[in-house]
Amino acid sequence: MTRAEIPTPALLLDLDRFERNVQKMAAHVKAAGKKLRPHAKTHKCPEIARRQVAAGAVGVCVAKVGEAEVMAAAGVRNLLITTEVVGAEKIGRLLRVLERQAETMVVVDHADNVRELGQAMARAGRVLNVLVDVEVGGRRTGIEPGEAALFLGRQVMNEPALNLRGLQGYAGHCAHVTGWESRRRASLKWMRKLMRTRALFDKHGLPVEIVSGGSSGTFDIDVELPGLTELQSGSYCVMDLDYRRIGSRAGKVYDSFEMALSVLATVVSRPGAELAIVDAGFKAFSTDKPFVPEAVEWPGLTYSWAGDEHGRLTIVDQDRAPRLGDLLEFFPPHCDPTINLYDRLYAMRGDRVEAVWEISARGRSQ
Amino acid sequence: MTRAEIPTPALLLDLDRFERNVQKMAAHVKAAGKKLRPHAKTHKCPEIARRQVAAGAVGVCVAKVGEAEVMAAAGVRNLLITTEVVGAEKIGRLLRVLERQAETMVVVDHADNVRELGQAMARAGRVLNVLVDVEVGGRRTGIEPGEAALFLGRQVMNEPALNLRGLQGYAGHCAHVTGWESRRRASLKWMRKLMRTRALFDKHGLPVEIVSGGSSGTFDIDVELPGLTELQSGSYCVMDLDYRRIGSRAGKVYDSFEMALSVLATVVSRPGAELAIVDAGFKAFSTDKPFVPEAVEWPGLTYSWAGDEHGRLTIVDQDRAPRLGDLLEFFPPHCDPTINLYDRLYAMRGDRVEAVWEISARGRSQ
Repeated sequence: MTRAEIPTPALLLDLDRFERNVQKMAAHVKAAGKKLRPHAKTHKCPEIARRQVAAGAVGVCVAKVGEAEVMAAAGVRNLLITTEVVGAEKIGRLLRVLERQAETMVVVDHADNVRELGQAMARAGRVLNVLVDVEVGGRRTGIEPGEAALFLGRQVMNEPALNLRGLQGYAGHCAHVTGWESRRRASLKWMRKLMRTRALFDKHGLPVEIVSGGSSGTFDIDVELPGLTELQSGSYCVMDLDYRRIGSRAGKVYDSFEMALSVLATVVSRPGAELAIVDAGFKAFSTDKPFVPEAVEWPGLTYSWAGDEHGRLTIVDQDRAPRLGDLLEFFPPHCDPTINLYDRLYAMRGDRVEAVWEISARGRSQ
Repeated sequence: MTRAEIPTPALLLDLDRFERNVQKMAAHVKAAGKKLRPHAKTHKCPEIARRQVAAGAVGVCVAKVGEAEVMAAAGVRNLLITTEVVGAEKIGRLLRVLERQAETMVVVDHADNVRELGQAMARAGRVLNVLVDVEVGGRRTGIEPGEAALFLGRQVMNEPALNLRGLQGYAGHCAHVTGWESRRRASLKWMRKLMRTRALFDKHGLPVEIVSGGSSGTFDIDVELPGLTELQSGSYCVMDLDYRRIGSRAGKVYDSFEMALSVLATVVSRPGAELAIVDAGFKAFSTDKPFVPEAVEWPGLTYSWAGDEHGRLTIVDQDRAPRLGDLLEFFPPHCDPTINLYDRLYAMRGDRVEAVWEISARGRSQ
């Protein structure tokens, strides 16, 4: 199968770039003496998870039990579910994940949840690995750092069916700070709270063998933290426009990892000399960022949204005007929610489809 | 199964409201002497399409061949594919749809496409029903109204394997004009171009037995056009915040149809007295509108985005603060791209799950 035979809109993965991204992050983390547990919420694809593990990752993070079910069924081990697993329905499904992958870890940030997990695991005759999730400024999940976290850690220790392994702290608000120096200052400031909580745990004899956090934006900043044992970076393997614009240590464009993901679209209408309409709109790209898809290697065009199924190309350079039926690639604004729109990835070697990978955890946000 | 047993985030359909919406539109269109071909790109669900047809719809519209494949396989007849079908890959799949539902119609707006469709149908020994798609101000697909459309209509007539049936004109930019009078003025102004093109076709003996257009925002405006034979409204069956805010003939809130669709989420973290975190973010709601999900019958809360998997609830009224594990419903900003995130709809009768309907055309934007 070639590029011209792919039904559009379609998600393409440039294998050369993807493979270099996976190898580069693996080498970086290894050189820093850390471990890598890349976040599979980005790609939701067991084949990508297997390749990350083959390159040295200890396992993968997942955001939800639904993703853990898919990864566990695909044989991916050492899962960390990075969002709290709350309520009987979700804990029931977690127990079935543990039947496949008993070492799966969860995070906790609330005493009630510690209790319900402890009771459910005891009833099931299981022991569950747990990290205390510490709030490091993202105003999302996580308990206050310091004494409150220590108190919760002790509650975990008091549950016979829970096995405390350490801490998680995800400073998501730092991942996209523009400019590497600003990002470094922000990240180190907030992650210091996690490091101090680690020291407190250590001082009181609570386990800190795993301290997990970090993003693709801070991958070369997090490694400065001696107390962080593993990185959770996700987007690095495919990249997106959102990351590209934040700048790297070396310059204004973040080029530490390569743009490996694109959406292939077809020109379905040419309603005027200055306009071309492609078959890719809100259902083909993420729309959560204040910027639009960007045509790959096709200068003289700007994309704007034209509804659920359509994108409008304004043709600036008539010499490069696309014709009816032409195929164009676009970089998506944000990789995770874009991938979540598709059932499969076309893994490309140049213009040839080398493989089609199922995005088996697409929509599995439960 | 009850509401409490549903894995969240989940898409709920209030059956009482949905059924009233379907009946109301059917009665409205019948009273106006028009036909209804509701747009299935909204719901992508064969069960909903079947119920619309049972209530009197002549068939359904679909945006893409991928949706037509699903609806045709589910036995839904009289499909109209409202986006141009361009290129060998898509025309090949269209031919397979025609094997199941030979009366399926497409739209054209370009001579090259008329030629490729005519040749492909002739080779396959098929006759394809065609509407000329007329641009009525939406700056999306469609040929110029008037002489250009007439010229294209004649090209369709000259292809022995194409059967010209009439016209399509979708003024999508009028659907969400706020205030009923303003919306009426805008819609009638632009749809007049379609009506004039209809008169021109009629004068020159080209068929206009089908003239298709209209939206849920203009359903009670489009019926004023004697030359429009059928309405394509889609969102009316489920509704969303985007439509609710545009106002109706009677007042500031559009209440012609009821809000039947919601997303059920769970509180997974309570990181402070003023904050609750739910398990529904960019992957659970459409994000293409400049406003956020709204809690259903739970005053004292405001939702804000907190990433791919999380929503942040700011608690204004402490007496109504949700607890860890509580289930909350939210109206989505925009129905079509929200439904496109889910594999199934929980059809609710009060708190009881009466049925689970597959959203079989989810992601089938190809």
